[in-house]
Amino acid sequence: MPNYKLLLEYDGSHFFGWQVQPGLRTVQGELEEAVHTLTKERVRIQCAGRTDRGVHALGQVANFRLNAEWPPEKIHHALNGITGKDIAVLQVDMVSDDFHARFDARARQYIYFLSLRPVAVGRQYTFFCKFDLDLDAMEEAAGHLYGEHHFEAFAQKDPDEQHYLSRIEDIEWIREGERIGFRIRANRFLHNMVRLIMGTLIQVGRGKISPQEFKDILASRSRNHIGFKAPAHGLFLEKVYY
Amino acid sequence: MPNYKLLLEYDGSHFFGWQVQPGLRTVQGELEEAVHTLTKERVRIQCAGRTDRGVHALGQVANFRLNAEWPPEKIHHALNGITGKDIAVLQVDMVSDDFHARFDARARQYIYFLSLRPVAVGRQYTFFCKFDLDLDAMEEAAGHLYGEHHFEAFAQKDPDEQHYLSRIEDIEWIREGERIGFRIRANRFLHNMVRLIMGTLIQVGRGKISPQEFKDILASRSRNHIGFKAPAHGLFLEKVYY
Repeated sequence: MPNYKLLLEYDGSHFFGWQVQPGLRTVQGELEEAVHTLTKERVRIQCAGRTDRGVHALGQVANFRLNAEWPPEKIHHALNGITGKDIAVLQVDMVSDDFHARFDARARQYIYFLSLRPVAVGRQYTFFCKFDLDLDAMEEAAGHLYGEHHFEAFAQKDPDEQHYLSRIEDIEWIREGERIGFRIRANRFLHNMVRLIMGTLIQVGRGKISPQEFKDILASRSRNHIGFKAPAHGLFLEKVYY
Repeated sequence: MPNYKLLLEYDGSHFFGWQVQPGLRTVQGELEEAVHTLTKERVRIQCAGRTDRGVHALGQVANFRLNAEWPPEKIHHALNGITGKDIAVLQVDMVSDDFHARFDARARQYIYFLSLRPVAVGRQYTFFCKFDLDLDAMEEAAGHLYGEHHFEAFAQKDPDEQHYLSRIEDIEWIREGERIGFRIRANRFLHNMVRLIMGTLIQVGRGKISPQEFKDILASRSRNHIGFKAPAHGLFLEKVYY
C-alpha cells in the first residue's frame, strides 16, 4: 500500500486539537475527510505529536496509506484545496511502506511565544504575560531541564503512561525586544509538558519560585507546586526529527 | 490643552478601517470611545496615515487633546483595557501643544507581505499568491519607483487631491524562503497606492508586464493598465517618521 508523508502547518485556534472527536472540528478529522473526498478511501492519519485544542503547528508530520496510488503532487494540491485555510499542507511525499510518523520520530521540537506587552497583530499566536519577568532567572531554571528526567512534575497524569521519562536535548531562548520565544527539543513530550514547564518558568520569572526551587520541583516528581498551565495559543509544534 | 501622542498596533481584520463611520467598527471610533469612557471628554483622534478596511498597523501614530490633564501611563493602561484585543496601545506621551500626527509626519513606511505557498499560521497577515513569481523582475520594476513621481497610475482617483506627487525614499525587499516582504517609505501615500503598486508588481512577477512597461505605466499617469489592487490583509502601516 502506498504510504504518504505529510508536512503540515496549522493554526490551532479553531480546532479542538489534532485528534478526531465526534462532532468536533479537528485537524485529523478534517484531513481524513479531505483524503476521502479526493480518493473515496477511508484512511487513518497518524501524526508525530498530537496537539491539544488551540495549539498550533509549523511542522507537524503525519502519514497515511492508500489502496490506490495517487501522485503526491495531486494529493498536495487537493488537500490544500479541500481543507480549511487554517491548514496548509507544505509537502507530500511517497515514503517507504514501514514509515510511521509517530513511532519513527527521534525528537520533537516545540516553541512557546510570550509577549511582555499587549499584542494586536499575532495575538492568536502569543501569550501576553502582564507581569515583569526576570528572564535570566527563567533561563537559569530552564537549564535544569537538560538531559533525562522523570517529568511527573510537568505532565498531566495519565494512567496509560508506562513512565514519564523524557530526554531534553536542546533549549533555546529567543529574545526580540518584548517578544520571547522558548524553544525545546526532546525525544518525547508528556501531555501538557511544555505548557506546564512554561507556566512554572513564568512563576520563576515573577520571583515566586527560585531557579533552585524549579530544579527541586522537577526532582520531586510531583505536581504539588504553584506552576500553572500556560495557555495553548502560545504553543507551536515546530519540527519533528527523524 | 494637554496633547497626547499614541503609538498603536492594530489588526485590521475586523475593522472597517481607521476612520469613524456611523454604525461600523473602526479603529478611530473605538479609541475615541475608550478616551470618552476614561475621561468623559469627547475628542477627535488624528492619525498619521488613515488605513483602509482590513489594513493593519504595527506603528500607527495618532494624537488628541484633552481639557483635563491625565498621566500618560494612566491613559496607556486604560486604553489597552477598554479597547478590543485587536488594538494594542504601545506608548502614550504628552507632547507639545502644536504636535499633529498627520501634518508633522515627514514620511510613512508600509510593508506588504506575500507568500508563495499556502499559509495557515498568520494567513490573516499575508497574501498567498498562487503564481510563480520572478522576484528579480519585480525588484527591477520597483526600482523605477525611487524618487519623486506623479502617481496617478497607482492611486485611486480622488477629486479632493490637489496633486498625486509622492517621493519614494526607500524600498526594501525581504526574502525569507517563500515569504516575501515589500517595504516602501515615502513622504506621502495616495489612496490605495501600495496595494496598486503591489498588484502591478505581481503582474511583473508573472511576466505579464516587463519592468520597462512598469516604468512606462508609472510615467503614463493613467490607470489604464492590467495591474490590480492587492488585497488589504497583506498590508501594514509599519512606521511613521517625524
